Amino acid sequence: MTADHTKSAGATALSPTGDPWLLTPGPLTTSESVKRAMLHDLGSRDRQFIAVNRAVRERLVDIVNGAQTHVCVPLQGSGTFVVEAMIGTFVPATGKLLILVNGAYGKRIARMCEYYGLSHVVEESAEDVPIDPAALDRRLANDPDISHVAIVYCETTSGLLNPVEEIAKITARHERHLLIDAMSAFGAIEIDARKIPFDAVVASSNKCLEGVPGIGFCIARKAALEKCRGNAPSLSLDLYDQWTSMEKNGQWRFTPPTHCILAFARALDEFDAEGGVAGRGGRYRANCRILVDGLREIGFQTLLPDSLQAPIIVTVRMPHDRKFNFEAFYDRLGRAGYVIYPGKLTVADSFRIGCIGRLGAKEIRGVLAVIRAALDDMGVTDCAPAPAEAAKLRA
Amino acid sequence: MTADHTKSAGATALSPTGDPWLLTPGPLTTSESVKRAMLHDLGSRDRQFIAVNRAVRERLVDIVNGAQTHVCVPLQGSGTFVVEAMIGTFVPATGKLLILVNGAYGKRIARMCEYYGLSHVVEESAEDVPIDPAALDRRLANDPDISHVAIVYCETTSGLLNPVEEIAKITARHERHLLIDAMSAFGAIEIDARKIPFDAVVASSNKCLEGVPGIGFCIARKAALEKCRGNAPSLSLDLYDQWTSMEKNGQWRFTPPTHCILAFARALDEFDAEGGVAGRGGRYRANCRILVDGLREIGFQTLLPDSLQAPIIVTVRMPHDRKFNFEAFYDRLGRAGYVIYPGKLTVADSFRIGCIGRLGAKEIRGVLAVIRAALDDMGVTDCAPAPAEAAKLRA
Repeated sequence: MTADHTKSAGATALSPTGDPWLLTPGPLTTSESVKRAMLHDLGSRDRQFIAVNRAVRERLVDIVNGAQTHVCVPLQGSGTFVVEAMIGTFVPATGKLLILVNGAYGKRIARMCEYYGLSHVVEESAEDVPIDPAALDRRLANDPDISHVAIVYCETTSGLLNPVEEIAKITARHERHLLIDAMSAFGAIEIDARKIPFDAVVASSNKCLEGVPGIGFCIARKAALEKCRGNAPSLSLDLYDQWTSMEKNGQWRFTPPTHCILAFARALDEFDAEGGVAGRGGRYRANCRILVDGLREIGFQTLLPDSLQAPIIVTVRMPHDRKFNFEAFYDRLGRAGYVIYPGKLTVADSFRIGCIGRLGAKEIRGVLAVIRAALDDMGVTDCAPAPAEAAKLRA
Repeated sequence: MTADHTKSAGATALSPTGDPWLLTPGPLTTSESVKRAMLHDLGSRDRQFIAVNRAVRERLVDIVNGAQTHVCVPLQGSGTFVVEAMIGTFVPATGKLLILVNGAYGKRIARMCEYYGLSHVVEESAEDVPIDPAALDRRLANDPDISHVAIVYCETTSGLLNPVEEIAKITARHERHLLIDAMSAFGAIEIDARKIPFDAVVASSNKCLEGVPGIGFCIARKAALEKCRGNAPSLSLDLYDQWTSMEKNGQWRFTPPTHCILAFARALDEFDAEGGVAGRGGRYRANCRILVDGLREIGFQTLLPDSLQAPIIVTVRMPHDRKFNFEAFYDRLGRAGYVIYPGKLTVADSFRIGCIGRLGAKEIRGVLAVIRAALDDMGVTDCAPAPAEAAKLRA
């Protein structure tokens, strides 16, 4: 299949394994060495695998400086599975969850609560507006029933970074428990368990840690997780049971994606080699800077001001010009070796370009050049969005 | 890590990728070409991946001859995740599930019901005794509240094959709905939707279809699945939502394990090339015959008579001789390049040797030779189990 693609793409820019560059929120372009780590079959209950698994868990805890206080519980499935597992495991049936929402991933947490019949309230702001710490403060002061607070660190709906450190301090001051969905932030943006009080933070193998998709993980404050026995409404998604069982013999309760975990171990080697969060985040910030500057130079409007933009994925307002056809634009970029991402905003027509994964300045400049060529071909000279869109967005 | 292993193993028998042969119920030894299919990163919302995913789903439905009547819903995670998803999606809160239990996997379904607060009853037989169709008939006649029946096709606890065709006919005659956990049978033992009436059958990528672990799938009767809206107690494990969403745009709701699915597509090519269920099952039956005959020749007792033994995994009674040390035996086999599996029986001390995965007569003869050498080294001449064990088992 890749052979065919290479052929049809002609002289396009492709990754070392002959694939288009994935400028998406994940699955991402991973290094060839990460993928090659999957060329081995290990027995899931054999010592060799148990050792790899233990090391991966310890290294993930170290990333948040939690070695003395926190534990890592990995879980099969996508990031959403471990978000749901966190909600179900940490919030007891008698609890009440406040969900801070400014995008699709916050809303998805509310949907999980509806499935579980879990008492919850939502504090919502617009997709291009960060969560307001003062609003949280008032909510917690006025509603003593709220036991837990959930927030999405980087909302990939928009690419916005929420003020998690402030949120965490306010939540702790009110003696409530914080649950963080750090899916697309973990590994690129610092999360220090010594500075940010949280009960649990979840992320996945295939975002900024640059592994392949297949597992999520929860970094939990041990003292908090110890109190979660019997909370979870689902056997498969019970992080307490997963944790206590894994502590006993080092094994997963149910078949783990062994190849994915071998890739993850290798990805963590490469993460360390790049200088951890500082190095990885630095490369992504440079990618994001080149991308945003380049897009603005072309005439596109990005959704967010620089102060709110996480260096993960950039939301671009759809040009108003009728000559701009997104499907054709997407296909043209794809043929040239760059896969971008459709928009997910409810308030404005948009598309997204990611800056994470095993890629750098060369690839970002490459996609900008192809974007320019595509616009030329379509005869688009003005990339400004519809004036009405701007009004709707701020309404 | 594999380089180290190769070095320490010396002149051992290893798979083409330098790994020990996995004589387990999974993850299994897969072909090198299946693993090499994972050397590519595809965008999960891009057309190329959508086409692969659609083809995999269609091919899985074809294996049960269900193209006109059935649909395939894949799900992230291990086999247990899709078993739980099947129970949660198909049995409504007002339903009552009869679980036919003769091993750990049947018991696990009961545990899922406890998490869900789902009304359920259990019809249990000993681990070496197949489910009795007559007992099912009586149960269904006497309890009109039972809406659904769940059965494990091949119980890998023991390696026993349950009489699913008879169970299905009785369940249909009583107008109840059948849910089948065919995890370690699917692909090696015929399941024909035209002969066996069922609402859903689940299995996973990394058993007899010889893919890598990371997804499970449900083959559902379309007319049954259509009635399941709103049943599931979990968003992540809602097969109705997963199905309707995938039907809309060909995409997964949440990030799929793209590499695992590429491997699965390749594994299905190799499954077809081997002659489908007949060819795959034939090789496994030959493996099992050589293994059982060889073990008996050495003096081991297998748990099951040939009439009940599925050609998947063989349970071996632990020798009574005090000179036999299982840990040393396991390690010795591992160093020689063969990973076997601990026992899971509650009624008798045992270990297990699998006969599935990308291996054949040569590897089975290879492990038998190493077993003989290990017994010689330990000075074990009599491999009979304790007489008391036999009595306990039949009690």
